[in-house]
Amino acid sequence: MTAAESAIRIMQRCDQMAECSEQPGLIDRPYLSAAMGDAHRLLSEWMTDAGLVVRTDAAGNLIGRRIGNTDKQVLLLGSHIDSVPNAGKYDGVLGVLVALEAATQRGERELPFHIDVIAFSEEEGVRFALPYLGSRAVCGTFCEEWLDRQDSSQRTMRDVATDFGLNLAELPAAAVYDPANVIGFVEPHLEQGPVLERAGVPVGIVSAIAGQSRLRVRFSGKAEHAGTTPMAGRQDALVGAAHWISRVNALANETEQLVATVGFASIVPNAPNVIPCEVSLSLDVRHAEDALRESALTDMLRSAEQIASSSALQFEVLEESSQTTTHVDASLTDILTASALDVGYAVPSLASGAGHDAVPMAERFPVAMLFIRHPGGISHHPDECADEADVAVAHETITQFIQRLIERETA
Amino acid sequence: MTAAESAIRIMQRCDQMAECSEQPGLIDRPYLSAAMGDAHRLLSEWMTDAGLVVRTDAAGNLIGRRIGNTDKQVLLLGSHIDSVPNAGKYDGVLGVLVALEAATQRGERELPFHIDVIAFSEEEGVRFALPYLGSRAVCGTFCEEWLDRQDSSQRTMRDVATDFGLNLAELPAAAVYDPANVIGFVEPHLEQGPVLERAGVPVGIVSAIAGQSRLRVRFSGKAEHAGTTPMAGRQDALVGAAHWISRVNALANETEQLVATVGFASIVPNAPNVIPCEVSLSLDVRHAEDALRESALTDMLRSAEQIASSSALQFEVLEESSQTTTHVDASLTDILTASALDVGYAVPSLASGAGHDAVPMAERFPVAMLFIRHPGGISHHPDECADEADVAVAHETITQFIQRLIERETA
Repeated sequence: MTAAESAIRIMQRCDQMAECSEQPGLIDRPYLSAAMGDAHRLLSEWMTDAGLVVRTDAAGNLIGRRIGNTDKQVLLLGSHIDSVPNAGKYDGVLGVLVALEAATQRGERELPFHIDVIAFSEEEGVRFALPYLGSRAVCGTFCEEWLDRQDSSQRTMRDVATDFGLNLAELPAAAVYDPANVIGFVEPHLEQGPVLERAGVPVGIVSAIAGQSRLRVRFSGKAEHAGTTPMAGRQDALVGAAHWISRVNALANETEQLVATVGFASIVPNAPNVIPCEVSLSLDVRHAEDALRESALTDMLRSAEQIASSSALQFEVLEESSQTTTHVDASLTDILTASALDVGYAVPSLASGAGHDAVPMAERFPVAMLFIRHPGGISHHPDECADEADVAVAHETITQFIQRLIERETA
Repeated sequence: MTAAESAIRIMQRCDQMAECSEQPGLIDRPYLSAAMGDAHRLLSEWMTDAGLVVRTDAAGNLIGRRIGNTDKQVLLLGSHIDSVPNAGKYDGVLGVLVALEAATQRGERELPFHIDVIAFSEEEGVRFALPYLGSRAVCGTFCEEWLDRQDSSQRTMRDVATDFGLNLAELPAAAVYDPANVIGFVEPHLEQGPVLERAGVPVGIVSAIAGQSRLRVRFSGKAEHAGTTPMAGRQDALVGAAHWISRVNALANETEQLVATVGFASIVPNAPNVIPCEVSLSLDVRHAEDALRESALTDMLRSAEQIASSSALQFEVLEESSQTTTHVDASLTDILTASALDVGYAVPSLASGAGHDAVPMAERFPVAMLFIRHPGGISHHPDECADEADVAVAHETITQFIQRLIERETA
C-alpha cells in the first residue's frame, strides 16, 4: 500500500471514529462513555485485521501489539481517543490512526521489538476534571482516590468504570511497562496551532512541551454610582484590570515564543450604572523555557501591583499552579527529524503550547512528538481539519522512524 | 418645633419607612408591593395628622395636600418611596419626608397656594424595567401599553395594579395638574455622590440633571488555543476591549465634569485556555452639557474603531440610547439658593449625575432640586446614610423657600 493509500485509509477511519459520539451530528466522546465503547469496537477490529494483539487495560486504554522477535523491547506509539464536547475529528484520533497505520505497514516483516499502539482513554480531562488519566495509569501515576470523583451526573469514576466493564482491581497492572524495556513513546498529533501552516510545511518535530503557569487573580476597588461619582477618586476595578490586560499583552510580546492569555473575566456587580468593585481574571502563561516563563510571570505580577497601588485598588493572586516544561528525548527526536528528512522534508522544530499524553509519559519514558499541520488552526471545534497529503507525510515519517529504529537495534 | 426637632422626626420616620420591606432585615420596596402598601399607610397617617388631605392616584402615587387660600395655584414637593433591592433608608424617602415636614410646619399659617406633597410610586424602574412610572403618570406621559409588561414573576403591571387596589380607568386623571397653575416641582434628595461631602457643605443646589448616553458595544476577534497560538497574529477581543476601557477612562478625565463608565462586560467563551473572540461592554457617559457629552462619545467611538482596525478586530455599537440634559428652572433655583443663604449657607451648585423624578416632571413643570450631603457616598446600599444636622438645614431651606414663595405670591 502506498503512503497516499494509507493516508486515504487514515482519513476515512477518522470519519468513522467521528460517528462514535454521544450526540448525533456532533463529536462528543467522553471518557468511558458508550461512544468510547463504540470507538473501541472499531479500533479493535482494525487492529485485529492488521494482526495486532488487542487488550483493554483497567484504565480503559485500548492497546494493540504488533509482536516482535523479542522478550522485552517495546516501542510505544499513540495518542488519545476521548474528545472535548463538540470536538473536531482529528485531535488525538489522527495520531492513534497514523500509529496504527505505520504498525500495520510493518506487518510483513519481522521486528526486533514489539510495537504497542496505544489509544489513551482520557487526555482532555472533561468528564472528571482530571486530564491524562489514561497515560497516568500506564505510567503508574494514577491515584486511586480519583475513583471517588464524580462527573456532572454525580456518578463516580469507580461506578462508571465498572459499568464500562473495567476491572479496577487490575489498575496497578496498567503500569505494565518497565522503563528499561521501553525504547520510547512517540506521539503523532495535529498541531492545534498555526505555526506549521504559517511555515508552509506538512509536519514538524516537537522540541518541548511548554511549561505553563495558571493563575486566578483579582482587582478590588469600590462600587459607586456611575453617574454621581466624579472621575477623580474612583476606585474602578475594571479600569485597573484593563490596564493590566494591556500590560500582560505587551510583556508577552517582549519575550520570543512566550504566550500569555487572559481568557476569563468576572465582573462584580456587572451593572452598566455601577463602577465595578471586583474583577477576577485568569492568566495563562506558557514558554518552553521555565526560567523565561517564571521571569515573565514575575514581571506581570509586579505590573499588577503597580497598577493597583497607583489606582487605589487591591490586587490578589487567588490561585496559582504550574507545570514545568516537558523535555523530549534528544535521541528519539533526532531520529524522528532524520526520518522526516528521509521522506524529503527538512522540518522545523517547534514547542508545543498545548499539553499532550507525552507530558505524563515523559516522567517515565523517553518521548518524542510529531506534529501534523493544522489548516485553519481551529482545534477543539467542528471545523478542525487535516490535509490528506500532510497525513501521508506523517505516515511515511513514522514508518521511516520505525525502520531507523530497527536498523539501530539490529546494527 | 425647632429645625433640630424636625430633623429628629424626619430621621425617625426614615427608620420607620425602612421597616416597610418585602424582606425582613433588608430594605426592598418595589412598585405596588405589599411593602409599598405599608409605606402608604404610614405616610397617610403622618399626612392626615399634619392636616393634609390625602389621596392615592391611579398610578399608586400618594399625595397629601396642604390646602391654601386659592382655587388653583399649587406648589409640588416630593420624591419617590419605591426602592432598589437591598436599598438604603434615604434614597427618595428622605426627600418625601423633608417635604412633608416643611408642609407640616406651614400648617398654622394661611397659604396663598396649595402645597401637594407627592410620594411617587416608582422611580427606580426595578419591577417592570421602566423608571419614573409615578412621575410620568402625573405628567401625562405614562403609556397605557406599559400595563401589559410583566415583572419577574410574569405578572402584568395591570394585574399588580388592580390587586393593589388602583382603578386603572382613572390613569389619565393622574395627570391632574394644569402647568399654568403649577408654581413648580421641587425635589429634595440625598446626593448619592461625594461632591457635597468633599466640599464640606450640608446641602447643594442642582444646576442640571446630566444628560446620559447608554451604549452596548462589542469587540469581535477569533477564538484560538491560548497555548498554541503565538502572540503575533492573535485577534484577542479582550485585549482590544482592555485598550478601549483604558482609553475611555483617559478621555473622560480630559473633560471637566464628564463621567464615563464601563460597568458591564461579557466575554465569549470566557475560558482560561481560549483567546476571547467576543467581548460585549456597556458604556455610560454623562455630562450636564449635551454637546460636551456628545463630543466625548464621538471621541470614544473613534478610539474604539482605531483600536479594532489596528488589532484585526471588529467593533460594533449594538445599542445606543440617550437622555438629554434636564434643565432646572432658573427662577425657582435662584429662590432655593437664596433660601439656603437665608439659613446661613452659601451653597454650591452641582449637576446631578443620577436621574430623578424631576427629569420627567421638567418636561411639563418648572423644577428645582435640593441635594443633601451623603456621608460615605454609598447609595443604593444598606450603608446609605444621612446626617441629622444636614437634614435640619435641608428642612430649614425648604421651609424658607416656601416662605419666599409666599412673599413673592403676596407681594
